[in-house]
Amino acid sequence: MTEFFDTVDSIPFGGPASADPLAFRWYQPDRVVGDRTMAEHLRFGVCYWHSFAWDGFDIFGAGTLDRPWHPSVAPGLDPMEAARMKMDAAFEFFAKLGTPYFSFHDIDIAPAGATFAETCRYFDEMVDYAGQKMADTGVELLWGTTNAFSHPRFMSGASTNPDPDLFRYAAAQVAHCMQKTHELGGANYVLWGGREGYETLLNTDMSRELDQMGRFMNMVVQHKYDIGFEGTLLIEPKPMEPTKHQYDYDVATVFAFLQKYGLEDEIKVNIEVNHATLSGHDFHHEVATAVGAGIFGSVDANAGDDRLGWDLDLFPTSVEDMSLGMLEIMRGGGFTTGGMMFDCKIRRQSISRDDLFIAHIGAMDTLAKSLLVAQSIIDEGELDRRRAERYAGWDTPEAREILDGKISLQEIHDDLVASGHEPQPVSGRQELLERLVARHIDTAS
Amino acid sequence: MTEFFDTVDSIPFGGPASADPLAFRWYQPDRVVGDRTMAEHLRFGVCYWHSFAWDGFDIFGAGTLDRPWHPSVAPGLDPMEAARMKMDAAFEFFAKLGTPYFSFHDIDIAPAGATFAETCRYFDEMVDYAGQKMADTGVELLWGTTNAFSHPRFMSGASTNPDPDLFRYAAAQVAHCMQKTHELGGANYVLWGGREGYETLLNTDMSRELDQMGRFMNMVVQHKYDIGFEGTLLIEPKPMEPTKHQYDYDVATVFAFLQKYGLEDEIKVNIEVNHATLSGHDFHHEVATAVGAGIFGSVDANAGDDRLGWDLDLFPTSVEDMSLGMLEIMRGGGFTTGGMMFDCKIRRQSISRDDLFIAHIGAMDTLAKSLLVAQSIIDEGELDRRRAERYAGWDTPEAREILDGKISLQEIHDDLVASGHEPQPVSGRQELLERLVARHIDTAS
Amino acid sequence: MTEFFDTVDSIPFGGPASADPLAFRWYQPDRVVGDRTMAEHLRFGVCYWHSFAWDGFDIFGAGTLDRPWHPSVAPGLDPMEAARMKMDAAFEFFAKLGTPYFSFHDIDIAPAGATFAETCRYFDEMVDYAGQKMADTGVELLWGTTNAFSHPRFMSGASTNPDPDLFRYAAAQVAHCMQKTHELGGANYVLWGGREGYETLLNTDMSRELDQMGRFMNMVVQHKYDIGFEGTLLIEPKPMEPTKHQYDYDVATVFAFLQKYGLEDEIKVNIEVNHATLSGHDFHHEVATAVGAGIFGSVDANAGDDRLGWDLDLFPTSVEDMSLGMLEIMRGGGFTTGGMMFDCKIRRQSISRDDLFIAHIGAMDTLAKSLLVAQSIIDEGELDRRRAERYAGWDTPEAREILDGKISLQEIHDDLVASGHEPQPVSGRQELLERLVARHIDTAS
Amino acid sequence: MTEFFDTVDSIPFGGPASADPLAFRWYQPDRVVGDRTMAEHLRFGVCYWHSFAWDGFDIFGAGTLDRPWHPSVAPGLDPMEAARMKMDAAFEFFAKLGTPYFSFHDIDIAPAGATFAETCRYFDEMVDYAGQKMADTGVELLWGTTNAFSHPRFMSGASTNPDPDLFRYAAAQVAHCMQKTHELGGANYVLWGGREGYETLLNTDMSRELDQMGRFMNMVVQHKYDIGFEGTLLIEPKPMEPTKHQYDYDVATVFAFLQKYGLEDEIKVNIEVNHATLSGHDFHHEVATAVGAGIFGSVDANAGDDRLGWDLDLFPTSVEDMSLGMLEIMRGGGFTTGGMMFDCKIRRQSISRDDLFIAHIGAMDTLAKSLLVAQSIIDEGELDRRRAERYAGWDTPEAREILDGKISLQEIHDDLVASGHEPQPVSGRQELLERLVARHIDTAS
Ligand SMILES: [Co+2]
Ligand SMILES: [Co+2]
Ligand SMILES: [Co+2]
Ligand SMILES: [Co+2]
Ligand SMILES: [Co+2]
Ligand SMILES: [Co+2]
Ligand SMILES: [Co+2]
Ligand SMILES: [Co+2]
Repeated sequence: MTEFFDTVDSIPFGGPASADPLAFRWYQPDRVVGDRTMAEHLRFGVCYWHSFAWDGFDIFGAGTLDRPWHPSVAPGLDPMEAARMKMDAAFEFFAKLGTPYFSFHDIDIAPAGATFAETCRYFDEMVDYAGQKMADTGVELLWGTTNAFSHPRFMSGASTNPDPDLFRYAAAQVAHCMQKTHELGGANYVLWGGREGYETLLNTDMSRELDQMGRFMNMVVQHKYDIGFEGTLLIEPKPMEPTKHQYDYDVATVFAFLQKYGLEDEIKVNIEVNHATLSGHDFHHEVATAVGAGIFGSVDANAGDDRLGWDLDLFPTSVEDMSLGMLEIMRGGGFTTGGMMFDCKIRRQSISRDDLFIAHIGAMDTLAKSLLVAQSIIDEGELDRRRAERYAGWDTPEAREILDGKISLQEIHDDLVASGHEPQPVSGRQELLERLVARHIDTAS
Repeated sequence: MTEFFDTVDSIPFGGPASADPLAFRWYQPDRVVGDRTMAEHLRFGVCYWHSFAWDGFDIFGAGTLDRPWHPSVAPGLDPMEAARMKMDAAFEFFAKLGTPYFSFHDIDIAPAGATFAETCRYFDEMVDYAGQKMADTGVELLWGTTNAFSHPRFMSGASTNPDPDLFRYAAAQVAHCMQKTHELGGANYVLWGGREGYETLLNTDMSRELDQMGRFMNMVVQHKYDIGFEGTLLIEPKPMEPTKHQYDYDVATVFAFLQKYGLEDEIKVNIEVNHATLSGHDFHHEVATAVGAGIFGSVDANAGDDRLGWDLDLFPTSVEDMSLGMLEIMRGGGFTTGGMMFDCKIRRQSISRDDLFIAHIGAMDTLAKSLLVAQSIIDEGELDRRRAERYAGWDTPEAREILDGKISLQEIHDDLVASGHEPQPVSGRQELLERLVARHIDTAS
Repeated sequence: MTEFFDTVDSIPFGGPASADPLAFRWYQPDRVVGDRTMAEHLRFGVCYWHSFAWDGFDIFGAGTLDRPWHPSVAPGLDPMEAARMKMDAAFEFFAKLGTPYFSFHDIDIAPAGATFAETCRYFDEMVDYAGQKMADTGVELLWGTTNAFSHPRFMSGASTNPDPDLFRYAAAQVAHCMQKTHELGGANYVLWGGREGYETLLNTDMSRELDQMGRFMNMVVQHKYDIGFEGTLLIEPKPMEPTKHQYDYDVATVFAFLQKYGLEDEIKVNIEVNHATLSGHDFHHEVATAVGAGIFGSVDANAGDDRLGWDLDLFPTSVEDMSLGMLEIMRGGGFTTGGMMFDCKIRRQSISRDDLFIAHIGAMDTLAKSLLVAQSIIDEGELDRRRAERYAGWDTPEAREILDGKISLQEIHDDLVASGHEPQPVSGRQELLERLVARHIDTAS
Repeated sequence: MTEFFDTVDSIPFGGPASADPLAFRWYQPDRVVGDRTMAEHLRFGVCYWHSFAWDGFDIFGAGTLDRPWHPSVAPGLDPMEAARMKMDAAFEFFAKLGTPYFSFHDIDIAPAGATFAETCRYFDEMVDYAGQKMADTGVELLWGTTNAFSHPRFMSGASTNPDPDLFRYAAAQVAHCMQKTHELGGANYVLWGGREGYETLLNTDMSRELDQMGRFMNMVVQHKYDIGFEGTLLIEPKPMEPTKHQYDYDVATVFAFLQKYGLEDEIKVNIEVNHATLSGHDFHHEVATAVGAGIFGSVDANAGDDRLGWDLDLFPTSVEDMSLGMLEIMRGGGFTTGGMMFDCKIRRQSISRDDLFIAHIGAMDTLAKSLLVAQSIIDEGELDRRRAERYAGWDTPEAREILDGKISLQEIHDDLVASGHEPQPVSGRQELLERLVARHIDTAS
């Protein structure tokens, strides 16, 4: 088989000062950091869709990327042959890059047939092909997912569609794709509701649609048990785009939904960095919120541009931002079934084949360095010590009584009237702690 | 007693074409609209803080407004005398304007004492004075609330403070202020967590703080029952400002919190228009979300500026926006204990005494007209008919089976494989429905 | 010739209360408003691209709209036959809707050939066809424009491309398209720099690119004179999207550019409502800025969603917003060669053929009503009188001396030291003026 | 004289790994970097207003900071005694911290008198006191500025006020403060138009106000020459806040203004990081824009929070962002009279006296490290080489002909028709260049 990325071999480690764009500066999969190797901590995955199924088009222009299997480039190519070409290139890429995982939507890896049944047959055939590739390369499946938003049939939603036939169509797709994810040993199954939302409330019964979605998710949970899938189910929050409002707005909104429909022990979240910022939150805030709610699952590491209001899906480049995210992840115990997925888009002008490698290497180094920073902060202990000290008053027996519900508002009131105690504020030390973090960024290595 | 607003008498109704800025164009309290009078639908209230306790200062400049009782204007005035002057002017204003309700924070109506006990004594005295004023004018209390964010002691939060003494201080204040709200016949009690959030996660244990707030709210609920208060408890969501992140970010976040701490049947929300937009949502979205979650309570009608990223607390002027909000309120059954509070700031340059009247009259007309639009849409029935029709497929027995949990993902999958059914999309008719709303705005009268 | 929009005839006037979605409620082309007819004031135009050349795709999904000439629907159709089908439908639409104008990009109306020369031939043929259609229907060309951003060749810009060959390619396109616009009697020629900007400053020499663009625009001006085109040249500002930063950010930025390159008397601006808000400005601010700078030209009337950060190109529905824009346009003397172009996208779910009519009718009514509001405000004179009164102090001889440069900072200083004069602030009356505008919105008819 | 910051001595250099919050990790004033010392490159300055004249109040709460000279803490203190206490503490701080510069508004350093003349006398007295302090400590004045926005008299603007008396008042203040800045050897004079903008266009004649401001600035230029001041005049752009729209929106808008009023050779810009982001631009974009326009002057280094929509004036902590800014500054030739002013606010919870040191040290280290990164990139040359190479096509004689105006649009068109040349796109290499920058951040030392 001819290589697609024929100018690139597997990526060596070059060290922090290496100027070779095709060598890692920080990522060493076997390097032990704290209680695990880097590979075990970070659990990197490459996404199939942006990296292999997208030709670089945007809303104002046609594809620019060198994707010879893409129908926009080779309209006459047999779709299944194109699907195999694409998969060959994808696994060549995974293997050379050295990421342990990949992810796909059902429609990424196989063409649509004339009927659902035919689509399933194509899909099954490509799943078999993927199984061989996985065996050959050792690359595993971080998660599978269903695309129930791109086809025009889903223009008004999938599970939240006003027409139950679309709920059924999406249900059928998910049933099938979960089964195949299970067969491929997928560690998780992700649900992103790309059209689960609305364009206008004028034609939308939001309560009704949320009930539909609650039902759908309960059915998905049941299916998981029915087929014996042991991976984690994940909802990926996003506030908007493509729809005006999406029901899985942010982690807190998903947590409200899960509780309302009795799902908080069954479904976790896949947090995307860019979706976090679009919803008005820092990435590490979303992680901390999910950890606190007990629903932290996995991460899509693609970042946004803070001046722009749409999903850019940039490869992450900020160690400053990602270190804070890694810190919250590690405080929460790190990944279990989840990982760091690169749901990232190469820039539309980055049209050299090796750009896709360079982009991923840069992102992996960003996160590897961020891991070192987070571990360094944890190892030193000073940040957590200072934080705990700030709350020390709550560890006294008198304060515990409050939290244990042994004292009433009125009793506290009467005590204060009697004591006249005036609390004395102490510095929050924000700038000191920011300096502490900066030091670890400068020195972690 | 001399009048403060001596150029204004009670506000007459002038009709839609009236050019008199001191006459109502739409608001007629006794006019029946659907099943209630306008006054019963809208339940207008004036806030004490911005309208009487604020001198017009902003972060870049000193006060401009004519508030002769304010310490910035009259530093030598006896604080209790100033408090009475202020209250005289406030009730003169309420009565002339004809709003049935007002609202206050504890610190708005009485000065701080040297100790908590002394503060309580001043407060109690002014509550008595307010009681007389209420009896004299017939103006009632929509809600009381505690200010546990302005004093430097609360710089790091109230119930979520790392120091339990501040939790206690806030608890004492709430206990006292709820009691007095109860005595004054308040219809609701509002909790806005102005410093319940964080500036930086570096010094913050978010889970711990949320647990503290969960405990606090449970104690507030218990206190309500203990003192026999029958009004509604309301949390007012706001995403940010003054803190970087506030725990009551938006309605969905509050709903997640309430469910987690077992409070979803005890506490509702007070939705502020400007807070809605700061959190990335349309006002009517927040209302619909709250109605759907069963926690819709009351409204702060002050709007923002869509180009600006902070809380402007503008008097509402958009019938187009407010009609959509009123429509969702009326679909949810309208206000019970809640109402339309003007938590609004006069512009800093609007320094004539009558500007405060003009601003409120404009806002009341905006909402009265919006009420007419919403009722007109409801009366016609076309919008709701079209919306229901869109979901008609879900009313078939086959679709009900899905919602009733009688069919599995796998069964749906197998049916689709067998049937090959391809759903047919239909138009969402957004532009048609927007035209329908525009027609009601033009014609409701 | 069979009709494409076979369920719609020409659009009648139904009056403000008409519930017929296919009748105008406000727009009556021949109605005289002030010194002109509605048609003369508003100069409506339909855009070819979104309404006929776009199939409804977005970044997350495929086309949904019923466009049988589109290659995504009919890949086998002869491109020139498809172009004629599209043009037949377009002119059928223009004529039935009754808009006096349309606009096109070169690539909207004719397919690309294998070479630039062949593309020109196709284009010329379709221009001839358009000329016949225009003669048949009486529909005129508001403006032509060149698309130098969609083809992959322009991925790094057109005139600002690091490669001069792309400057040349765009130059050739503009030369050709301007000539044809001239031949069709176009009233204006628009330049929107969709890729004239950057993704990252790391690879960008902004000064160099601005100099290139300055040269390009000077060449365009020269070409205008060379070919005898008497229409207006217009730059359309947009702050971002598709690129991270676009050089024509907003009106003020374009004004800086025009002055720097000596073009301020040669080129005006085409202001898009949605681009205004994306750049942080109200639409009417951008109009007032352009009028003040002497560069107001034309308007793209498509609006955005204030919660969303990308270009939605919504059909305008807000009379409240558009009235303020119309007011500034009329204060500036109204349109000369410009007009109200609907650079609007039907919603992706609005898939009935008549939805395109309903959307345009709604937009035309929004603007017709806004025109009535603006004229009503102007006729009354109260707003302008109050505004002028506010500046009355500047009309005294002493104040004119300042503006005429007859007095120095030091003299003013010395006068103030001597006089000790303390200026007395007066109310800005914002709320009163907002009420005035609301009254005209309610009563204009 | 007793020390105010009695727990802090002058700040030593501790090196990158130093955990001492009161030692510099990167800043060594005498270290040579490229062609200058760090001190010469960075020209750090501390601002008087936030650091000494502000008590920590915000719009929702009272002051928290330990500022014993502040009237909110010590209302009975003699104002001139308070002013001297404040100045003693300020110069103690400057000297211990080791910043070579400071800046002030006229109202920061001296109290207001009953008349303008009296205010001037107080000011002059404190200017004399500052002169002694400067001589004693060696600290110099980076810039003076006038506060013509905080006093209620300026609520509707200063030079753009509808009332010419306010223009006069501001003119008198500027005349006086420029003179004193000159006497103190100030290197620049800054004009920030805090109320030069509008709240609503309904009461605003924007053209008239811009003409007033154009006149004002021309008078300021004349005054500079009249008094022999040789420093640079600087306008500080800000898009909004406190007003809805400020006329000095961003660098491009200021450039348009300067050109219109013939000031582009006389006035430069003082770019604030947080103002840049509020206007929708990256800081380094604003620097590059100013350098390109020939109006780059100075920097206010305070940063914002990308999730928040108001001016936070945070001490800068991001080396990633500031390195890009430093790179553009150095490409532009570095500072001449300008410098890095910390127009920063300590967090309201940072109430320990040493927090003010820690915050400044952190900011100085951030910028010192950023300087090292920028110099490292420049020294390597790879980034600039790659950028230049991208534009190499423009250096050919054929391309120069275009820029030199020797070829017309039509000629280019005819050439392309003849040649059929199809340009070949090349990769923009964004990710590769981002990796290059990351490497320098990791390795610069
Ligand atoms: Co994602
Ligand atoms: Co995304
Ligand atoms: Co409120
Ligand atoms: Co508010
Ligand atoms: Co446009
Ligand atoms: Co647009
Ligand atoms: Co500043
Ligand atoms: Co600032």
